Amino acid sequence: MKRPYLALITDFGEDDFFVASLKGVILRINPSARIIDVTHRIPSFDIRQGSFILHSCYKYFPPRTIFLVIVDPGVGSSRPILLAKTKDYFFIAPDNGVLSFTLKSEKVEQIIKVTNEKFFLEEQSKTFEARDKMAPVAAWLSKGTSPIVFGPQIQEYKMLGHLEPIKKEGEIIGSIIYTDKFGNLITNIPKAMFNKLKKEAKKNKLILLAKNKKISSFRESYSQGRRGELFYLVGSLDFIEIAAREASASKKIKAKVGDKLRIVIAGSK
Amino acid sequence: MKRPYLALITDFGEDDFFVASLKGVILRINPSARIIDVTHRIPSFDIRQGSFILHSCYKYFPPRTIFLVIVDPGVGSSRPILLAKTKDYFFIAPDNGVLSFTLKSEKVEQIIKVTNEKFFLEEQSKTFEARDKMAPVAAWLSKGTSPIVFGPQIQEYKMLGHLEPIKKEGEIIGSIIYTDKFGNLITNIPKAMFNKLKKEAKKNKLILLAKNKKISSFRESYSQGRRGELFYLVGSLDFIEIAAREASASKKIKAKVGDKLRIVIAGSK
Amino acid sequence: MKRPYLALITDFGEDDFFVASLKGVILRINPSARIIDVTHRIPSFDIRQGSFILHSCYKYFPPRTIFLVIVDPGVGSSRPILLAKTKDYFFIAPDNGVLSFTLKSEKVEQIIKVTNEKFFLEEQSKTFEARDKMAPVAAWLSKGTSPIVFGPQIQEYKMLGHLEPIKKEGEIIGSIIYTDKFGNLITNIPKAMFNKLKKEAKKNKLILLAKNKKISSFRESYSQGRRGELFYLVGSLDFIEIAAREASASKKIKAKVGDKLRIVIAGSK
Repeated sequence: MKRPYLALITDFGEDDFFVASLKGVILRINPSARIIDVTHRIPSFDIRQGSFILHSCYKYFPPRTIFLVIVDPGVGSSRPILLAKTKDYFFIAPDNGVLSFTLKSEKVEQIIKVTNEKFFLEEQSKTFEARDKMAPVAAWLSKGTSPIVFGPQIQEYKMLGHLEPIKKEGEIIGSIIYTDKFGNLITNIPKAMFNKLKKEAKKNKLILLAKNKKISSFRESYSQGRRGELFYLVGSLDFIEIAAREASASKKIKAKVGDKLRIVIAGSK
Repeated sequence: MKRPYLALITDFGEDDFFVASLKGVILRINPSARIIDVTHRIPSFDIRQGSFILHSCYKYFPPRTIFLVIVDPGVGSSRPILLAKTKDYFFIAPDNGVLSFTLKSEKVEQIIKVTNEKFFLEEQSKTFEARDKMAPVAAWLSKGTSPIVFGPQIQEYKMLGHLEPIKKEGEIIGSIIYTDKFGNLITNIPKAMFNKLKKEAKKNKLILLAKNKKISSFRESYSQGRRGELFYLVGSLDFIEIAAREASASKKIKAKVGDKLRIVIAGSK
Repeated sequence: MKRPYLALITDFGEDDFFVASLKGVILRINPSARIIDVTHRIPSFDIRQGSFILHSCYKYFPPRTIFLVIVDPGVGSSRPILLAKTKDYFFIAPDNGVLSFTLKSEKVEQIIKVTNEKFFLEEQSKTFEARDKMAPVAAWLSKGTSPIVFGPQIQEYKMLGHLEPIKKEGEIIGSIIYTDKFGNLITNIPKAMFNKLKKEAKKNKLILLAKNKKISSFRESYSQGRRGELFYLVGSLDFIEIAAREASASKKIKAKVGDKLRIVIAGSK
């Protein structure tokens, strides 16, 4: 049986010694570990962004991949460390909501509170638990150690609120959950909810309202947009996105993560 | 026989879920794939820069390496996806010229237009063909699938213009094709052409003219330059470079990619 | 016996073809090489920062790891290339002090001046010795070539000064040696020296003086700090750090690498 992959998502950046220390610790314990960097550029302490990035790509990874997800403003405090086992994957993270988007859509089989000090580094700091506790646990797990050995099973863990849009009659109230490198604004409105509203609208057009702009052009792909035009489309994650052709919708509309938006039926309101 | 390497060059940046999704898709299809990041920091949509970066390093890679090159402003349009087989390597990229520098210097054996949907992901978006089409094709190729299975062979594909400098009697007219992290300005003037002009010049000096500056110092290496001085040299890619010692020539001279320059024989014009 | 890891630390950034060229060269010589990126974001030519980053993480890596450390303002000059063998590791670097912190704390067994051209690339530039000389040497070393084959053993090599703080009676005079991504200011004052001063202070408080600020709060971890407060703690590298909770101490105090600071006994001066 193939060794599982170990995928890292952190807010550590790439300038410092943080990520290298994690990798060193993992490879010392499991020299055959196969480590993949997802990203280390989650904005510092931004639990919600970390949760979204994990959610946006985890399911493309091979089954049994172990995700080590470190956005941890509470390092050194009493917040627990979680090991979540779902049908296909493992997730190790501080218990602060950073797994919210993913645990909501995965079939959760076990949540372990990681407490067994046997698996931690011998010398521990209070400021770098990712290196001293979470990375070694991930490495031991990748060697086949059973999840249950790391600590007791728990039922309660922290989940973020406001993950989902609200569907009312004739409209959807959502928010922007991510801005990508190209300036595309990803909303939390799933394709299915959008299609339902489209059905309600019959032959009427749908209009997206955000930051005092009315966006009425719907396109199939970025390259179908007209240059200079703001439009919306179904993005690669099956969420509604606001975009502009070879330009930054984010700059054009001056919107940011957390901003509310609505999709309504033209003429209705 | 050793598994080939899969080398990624994209304009996706490292903040988002794009690169991780590609890697996940590849590893799901070929769990033994060996992935190398070349860079994900091609400026957004900058086909010419992507083409240059690929060209500047591909030939250092082991034979049979598969390069996945994604700078794709036309994603979702009808522009084809290419699979190019050269004597030593494979290249997968949108047909927009991003392989120009490389195909011009490699012995091309086959160009396939990738059309066989059997190798694409089942669920496809219109905005992320790198994940849904190109990455899976690269993964199957790395497992040994024959190129010809992915689609028909074609003869015509897009090439960028203005790749090469012009050699006239007593002068070379070239342009800046790359600015590196240290601010060194790499031109498209190859060492061989420069040496030819040097021969023509006999005992006269050569002068590089760029942005209203006359640069007359030629050095063997960066560390031979005098501090504060602008000079030119033969860079590590065998192109003429404008440089400054432990300083940015790019800032000193305010030049950018695309700017023209000339090398002339002193006193001649 | 397991293949050793090859860990890269450079000031090359990730935008260019530099790092990819190193990896290509290494993999052509040793297709089984296992390459780990430590960081490529050492500030350009900043030997001291490179030395610190190496020191801060190398000992977490598996024994026999080969570190290729490239911060090399003297490329193309006559500065030698070093291969250092310590009890557990190998280091390849220009002889400019970039190994200082590490060689001071490791048990050095051999220092080789790398001169054997047999192991360099056939075509060599004067501006990219990392690709043409150091990467191939690292690759051959990773295949099991004995260190002594690369050149003669030497006794003298360059070390940076001012690595250590000064302990006087009742005070420590140190300096800031690193600012991390979160803005934490890492000093060169080790925990042991600090504890010694604490003993001297008996029941008196210790105060850290930096940039005209008196910092008197000592915390166990970042999350124990009060928001808005500057405090100091023992960081994950066992050095004293100045920090602020979920905020940048570096911005609050406007300190930078090289700035001096003192820790004194309250009331004593």
